[in-house]
Amino acid sequence: MANQIDIAIIGGGVSGVYSAWKLKKQFPDQKIVVFEGSDHIGGRLLSVKPPEIPNMTAELGGMRILENTQKLIVDLIKELNKELPANEQITTYDFPVDEPQNLAYLRGEYLRLVDFVTNPDEVPYNMSFLEKGNGPGTIIVNAIEQIVPGITDSTLTEEQRREMAREASFDGVPLYQWGFWNLLYRVISSEGYQFGRDAGGYDSTLVNWNASDAIPWYLSDFGMTPKYKGFTNGFQQVPIALAELFVKDGGDVRLEQQLRGFDYENETFSLHFSNGQTITAGKLILAMPRRALDLITPDSPQLKQIQPLIKSVTPRPLFKLFTTYANPWWRICGFTDANGVFVPVQSGRSVTDLPVRQTYYWPNSDGTPAVNGRAMLLASYDDGNNIGFWDGLRPQRSQAWKEGRSHAKIADPFVGDDDKKNHTVEQGNLNQTWDEYQAPRRMVAEVARQLQQMHGLDYTPLVKSAAFRDWGEDPYGGGWNSWNIGVKSWEVRDEITNPIAGTPLYICGEAYSDAQGWVEGALQTADIMLGQFLAPPKDAKSKSVSQLETVDK
Amino acid sequence: MANQIDIAIIGGGVSGVYSAWKLKKQFPDQKIVVFEGSDHIGGRLLSVKPPEIPNMTAELGGMRILENTQKLIVDLIKELNKELPANEQITTYDFPVDEPQNLAYLRGEYLRLVDFVTNPDEVPYNMSFLEKGNGPGTIIVNAIEQIVPGITDSTLTEEQRREMAREASFDGVPLYQWGFWNLLYRVISSEGYQFGRDAGGYDSTLVNWNASDAIPWYLSDFGMTPKYKGFTNGFQQVPIALAELFVKDGGDVRLEQQLRGFDYENETFSLHFSNGQTITAGKLILAMPRRALDLITPDSPQLKQIQPLIKSVTPRPLFKLFTTYANPWWRICGFTDANGVFVPVQSGRSVTDLPVRQTYYWPNSDGTPAVNGRAMLLASYDDGNNIGFWDGLRPQRSQAWKEGRSHAKIADPFVGDDDKKNHTVEQGNLNQTWDEYQAPRRMVAEVARQLQQMHGLDYTPLVKSAAFRDWGEDPYGGGWNSWNIGVKSWEVRDEITNPIAGTPLYICGEAYSDAQGWVEGALQTADIMLGQFLAPPKDAKSKSVSQLETVDK
Repeated sequence: MANQIDIAIIGGGVSGVYSAWKLKKQFPDQKIVVFEGSDHIGGRLLSVKPPEIPNMTAELGGMRILENTQKLIVDLIKELNKELPANEQITTYDFPVDEPQNLAYLRGEYLRLVDFVTNPDEVPYNMSFLEKGNGPGTIIVNAIEQIVPGITDSTLTEEQRREMAREASFDGVPLYQWGFWNLLYRVISSEGYQFGRDAGGYDSTLVNWNASDAIPWYLSDFGMTPKYKGFTNGFQQVPIALAELFVKDGGDVRLEQQLRGFDYENETFSLHFSNGQTITAGKLILAMPRRALDLITPDSPQLKQIQPLIKSVTPRPLFKLFTTYANPWWRICGFTDANGVFVPVQSGRSVTDLPVRQTYYWPNSDGTPAVNGRAMLLASYDDGNNIGFWDGLRPQRSQAWKEGRSHAKIADPFVGDDDKKNHTVEQGNLNQTWDEYQAPRRMVAEVARQLQQMHGLDYTPLVKSAAFRDWGEDPYGGGWNSWNIGVKSWEVRDEITNPIAGTPLYICGEAYSDAQGWVEGALQTADIMLGQFLAPPKDAKSKSVSQLETVDK
Repeated sequence: MANQIDIAIIGGGVSGVYSAWKLKKQFPDQKIVVFEGSDHIGGRLLSVKPPEIPNMTAELGGMRILENTQKLIVDLIKELNKELPANEQITTYDFPVDEPQNLAYLRGEYLRLVDFVTNPDEVPYNMSFLEKGNGPGTIIVNAIEQIVPGITDSTLTEEQRREMAREASFDGVPLYQWGFWNLLYRVISSEGYQFGRDAGGYDSTLVNWNASDAIPWYLSDFGMTPKYKGFTNGFQQVPIALAELFVKDGGDVRLEQQLRGFDYENETFSLHFSNGQTITAGKLILAMPRRALDLITPDSPQLKQIQPLIKSVTPRPLFKLFTTYANPWWRICGFTDANGVFVPVQSGRSVTDLPVRQTYYWPNSDGTPAVNGRAMLLASYDDGNNIGFWDGLRPQRSQAWKEGRSHAKIADPFVGDDDKKNHTVEQGNLNQTWDEYQAPRRMVAEVARQLQQMHGLDYTPLVKSAAFRDWGEDPYGGGWNSWNIGVKSWEVRDEITNPIAGTPLYICGEAYSDAQGWVEGALQTADIMLGQFLAPPKDAKSKSVSQLETVDK
């Protein structure tokens, strides 16, 4: 294995393998290598097949796209399908979210989602006259319209809304200097805000991040009748396909290669890996989120120089726990409608203010609900303060990363009936297995207890098997990243892709994008970065890093 | 200034100056120096005099003691008073907390504290039959009694309760492996828990910290009819007196000396300071909390060795904002009792689930309430998730510490009527001034808005002046520290005081004590540390640090 390469790409997530695939087409003769710290490709896309349920795929990481607004990923899938063989085509299905009969267990009261609008007096939040009778999304969208009048006009493009948010002020202070939470508190009641957070299912989207980014971000997801799509064979298929096509074109992917730091001298990067190896490269692309950059900063003089850029975002926790059952017990939680027809709970999600927060009734690979037989729940999808609750119910956080290993087994795992069998699982082209992400025993017991409570059951449905992932662990630091208050994200986003003029160092990924937390964001910054990569070199003068001295949190 | 000393003590908080004062009496001929990074003594005790209110002292840091259980601080005050001149005696007053007529603005409902018991149906929490009709403290104490039967018996000593918590198990798992939040969720309803947190006024005390520490800690503060005492001339008077007596005995205190790291070779410590100076010492005492230790760890080989011990606690945020007024406008928020007598709101605190959380009607120096004329509020005392709310309303966090300065001015300060005058403030022996802790303009506007709302006023009382402190800033990292789940605190507490056998390195302070967040804890670990200091040297063998590898969070 030659240790002198042309382009080194660190990170085998979407932005890394996408960049590799694109660059290899541009430079077929150059030696391009993707180095991935873990034992698999995909980053925060992680799809595994549960035991005994061949027609479902658990998404332990990212699970969907917004088909109507996320043009980059939609186009990429089309492009990939042209290159992929017939039996490896990437297909999607309609991903259900809110169904009227689904449950909202809030403040100890049992409601259905439809009650937010049809039975406002039953909703246990002391909201204002204007707020009452609306769902959580509508309350936040109405608040946003008060903050930036006109911005919720559905004829606007996402770019136009971004432009408006950049230009807007509130109380004489530019929006980018406001926290989203602070602003919401000025235009809706504290109870409206709390309802928006509790019933909306997410904590971290309404916290105090940069309002000029949060507003268009919120509208793209929640405001504009989004069309969610899930992936028939798992979202991880996308980065795996990119990596395979890159290798087919002559590229090189090396797994379990953790970068510990790098130097740049005499127009060459020296990359230091945890296995003691040093590799030199002419150009370096860091396709990594903030926490991963933080981890290599102490041993990377160039990164020390651009600390204010790196620290302009905050990693946000995200936690997912899947459980499987002998049958879809949740169907009986439905109701009988006016025509005497029973409407089951079967797809989309229910919400609660218990630490479980959101439960998704997981669909089959074609998007249809489980009707009988083996079935699966995304039992808890949790992104905020409750992470600390679940964290308490497992042996302490894995030190695997720090110790140079990419993965560690749980000390006291949950072992259900389905884990005791000798089962074979058809993995397709996914390279990770459900068993590698075993959930801790005490965590599964507690989630079962809370699921029973939020569904109003008198018994606890028996869990057959469970898997979980906490994206707060190193080297990810969080499931997504959010722009800090005071940052002009539209400047940092572009600057960080090639942060030091004259040095062929590039950074890309979801963390520093307009679509944080989405694959779309990873592709956006990869495209900007590739534009810089192919552009003629700039003057080697210090850029506006110094202007950012004060935004470091 | 000689650069070779016998005993170096880093940190001018209570544990540092107390240790210095004690050691100087023991070793009058040794050169003992306290190095403090900021420009003043006191650490997280910080008392300032507000303009135009000579009979009040604002406590921007610690503000009280528990006279009935905190024997170390009570005895220390007695001992100090023997040494101090008549005009510098340290005296205390009864510090009021919960008064029945005070307000509880929760979930958009106006209640008085007395309503928790007398009007349970008005309390907007969907609690269980057993919980309803109790105040937040009683609900938590009852929960604790269910977790460890017998532990709330009032005839037990604090040490006996600690012993019980150490020995106890729940569901077959030792208490020290449980998170307090996880356990509470097992014995009370989610609404009971939420009420305990919202109405109790604190977020961080009920989070997922080590249950075997949290339980006796909670009972010492909340459970056992505590007798709070405030300080007539400010709590900071205690460390200032200790430092002055130490200097009088021949000790040396050096301010604005930030330690950046240290080595230990040939039985000598080399201490590296941010001003470039290197000082050598025979013995080294680090009287610092976890975050301050973290900051010097990269350049301190001995600290790297004991990372698991250092990381066994978590710093918790704490935020205090004081505001002053032309008169105590809150008095009219009282009610007329059954005898037709008006009972004003005048002392103790009110609580809310708004980000303000707790508001204290600040007492005069003798503990009596302000009746007319200038008056002061501890407008917000906030310790949890809401810190992020207030953080959004100020120019980004000060980088002063990192840049080697001890303090930085706010960019956009609130300037009230009283700040425009040429006022003189009698500081007594306090060396910090109110003006140095100016609050940001937007923060003061928002706190005024929330105070108006929680008091049900139709106007916003005019703020005359404001001061604040966020103890999450470096080098403190938090207002207090809590033991992590899985840690046997009773072992770490003792081990960390002299963590490396054969090396005269000592660590003390609130962070690693049984009374975290209290001066009592600082004194406890200082006493344990002094015991080790004076003990004959131990074998230079590795201690049980390795056993702790897994508790690092």
